Amino acid sequence: MKNARYDVLALGNAIVDVIARAEEDFLVAHELTKGAMMLIDEPRAETLYAAMGPAKVISGGSAANTIAGLASFGGKGAFIGKVKQDELGKLYRHDLTSQGVSFDTAFAAEGPATARSFIFVTPDGERTMNTYLGACQGLTVADVDKATVQNADIIYLEGYLWDPPAAKEAFRKASEFAHAAGGRVAITLSDSFCVDRYRDEFLGLIRNRLVDIVFANEHELKSLYQTGDFDSALSALRAENIIAAVTRSEKGALAVTPDGIVAEPVFPVERIVDSTGAGDLFAAGFLFGLTSGREVRDSLRLGALAAAEIISHVGARPDVNLKVLASDNGLL
Amino acid sequence: MKNARYDVLALGNAIVDVIARAEEDFLVAHELTKGAMMLIDEPRAETLYAAMGPAKVISGGSAANTIAGLASFGGKGAFIGKVKQDELGKLYRHDLTSQGVSFDTAFAAEGPATARSFIFVTPDGERTMNTYLGACQGLTVADVDKATVQNADIIYLEGYLWDPPAAKEAFRKASEFAHAAGGRVAITLSDSFCVDRYRDEFLGLIRNRLVDIVFANEHELKSLYQTGDFDSALSALRAENIIAAVTRSEKGALAVTPDGIVAEPVFPVERIVDSTGAGDLFAAGFLFGLTSGREVRDSLRLGALAAAEIISHVGARPDVNLKVLASDNGLL
Repeated sequence: MKNARYDVLALGNAIVDVIARAEEDFLVAHELTKGAMMLIDEPRAETLYAAMGPAKVISGGSAANTIAGLASFGGKGAFIGKVKQDELGKLYRHDLTSQGVSFDTAFAAEGPATARSFIFVTPDGERTMNTYLGACQGLTVADVDKATVQNADIIYLEGYLWDPPAAKEAFRKASEFAHAAGGRVAITLSDSFCVDRYRDEFLGLIRNRLVDIVFANEHELKSLYQTGDFDSALSALRAENIIAAVTRSEKGALAVTPDGIVAEPVFPVERIVDSTGAGDLFAAGFLFGLTSGREVRDSLRLGALAAAEIISHVGARPDVNLKVLASDNGLL
Repeated sequence: MKNARYDVLALGNAIVDVIARAEEDFLVAHELTKGAMMLIDEPRAETLYAAMGPAKVISGGSAANTIAGLASFGGKGAFIGKVKQDELGKLYRHDLTSQGVSFDTAFAAEGPATARSFIFVTPDGERTMNTYLGACQGLTVADVDKATVQNADIIYLEGYLWDPPAAKEAFRKASEFAHAAGGRVAITLSDSFCVDRYRDEFLGLIRNRLVDIVFANEHELKSLYQTGDFDSALSALRAENIIAAVTRSEKGALAVTPDGIVAEPVFPVERIVDSTGAGDLFAAGFLFGLTSGREVRDSLRLGALAAAEIISHVGARPDVNLKVLASDNGLL
């Protein structure tokens, strides 16, 4: 394994998604902020689960979804994240490794259960996430295998890692290892409320060049620069002088590079069934494009295609082989 | 609870479905009989799971799917079945009770884990099931609550109950209780290989009037009467002089009553995504029709509608409220 090369190594919270449909008034009754990810403790998890309708259980976690997508495109991916050795933890490991992703982080032998996110999907396809971090809180620097990090062209880290206390150190250590070996470091800002919680630290990562590539959606970018105006946020991002990919829901996505801005529209979908994972799978396509030497525009297209696939069904892991899908659409 | 009336009480194997896509050659390589349900032991379960792609975990079990569908139509349903008090068992109970089904069977405190069926869905939408019975083997007559049985208009039993050794006694006891209270007993023949295993016993149930209503698909009916000719099988069924509902995949369904035969076509679907649960949900609609006093033809239509919904997505539990769907389609 030590000699394996990876296109991307992802480091993130390893979370099982528990997904059910819900009406808008359910969100109101349970004081849920539509479209956001909220952290919940165990009693709250029990309350929400008891109120939740019949659910589908599908492995998730933002960076893990991205690396699963990259593998589905044919990229070589690895993952670092923490699950407990319980039934859901074993399901989680199965789903990632059977997708072709290397995932060697040791199981947590004790402590809280494998993390789960209770996701409510409203009739418009929007998802509202409530995450019990559980075993993710056991991810530490000890889980960051130096050789694995240094064998990756890009390491991809989620902003959500700032939530479990020990994980940000793992993030920093991974970034350090990667740069020492000439690799690049990417971060996704994860969620506008997550940016609210850690704005200064995220800006510090960018300005101190601990990260080289930034993924964000429109809301996260506005939150990062504390502006309600997208163009102002975009200008601020350009001034950072790094590579960035910004998703704008139905308005498509754009890439910011030192050479300028490239925009691409979305791929049409018949109906948005469940938007869970849209950003994660966009990142998968974009990263696959970058690491396979494609142009920025083509990388954006691959991202848009993967996002379109994921919002067409329930769950945030691809239902089809993305390499075949991309080939069928003339992108590979 | 003792005074609650139920339209239908279902008794069946409580199984969590673990569903993944697979190519035809996967079935060949693993010697799986396409479209069938095969029983597997734990080592085989581990082998198949290791070879399986990323999966979705969704509560299943034939009779349980039917009762979940009945509840989604607005019928009052109860379920008797055995899960262990493990993570999947708790998920299972949540999914059924949150659908509005009464489910009071005690958890198995020890012994094998909650049952799971590894389901491979080929590109044509056909499903091939491999079931590890686990905790289902702990279902006994002690789990058949007399008051619950006697408060149901119809009790619905699956032929699969003949597989775990103790469950058939639970089936017989439930039938006895139901008839003593003036209720009716329905059985689904479950699977043509299941009919092969227990043909004489199933015919005995029918001919000794331990059951009053039979659900079967074309293959099961042919297997029951050991003929390759559907019309011969249908004639043999008519001669039993009971009520029966027979599904014929894309050829629709028909009901056999002492008054004659009524046939209805399928509801059109755009694409068969996953045929898991088609028969179960047909039974849900038909039973809802029967217990809500509808004509046989309307009951067939409700069955066809529910079957069409279930094959349009992954999993065997309804994704939408069937009452609303039926109303939107002018059936309620």
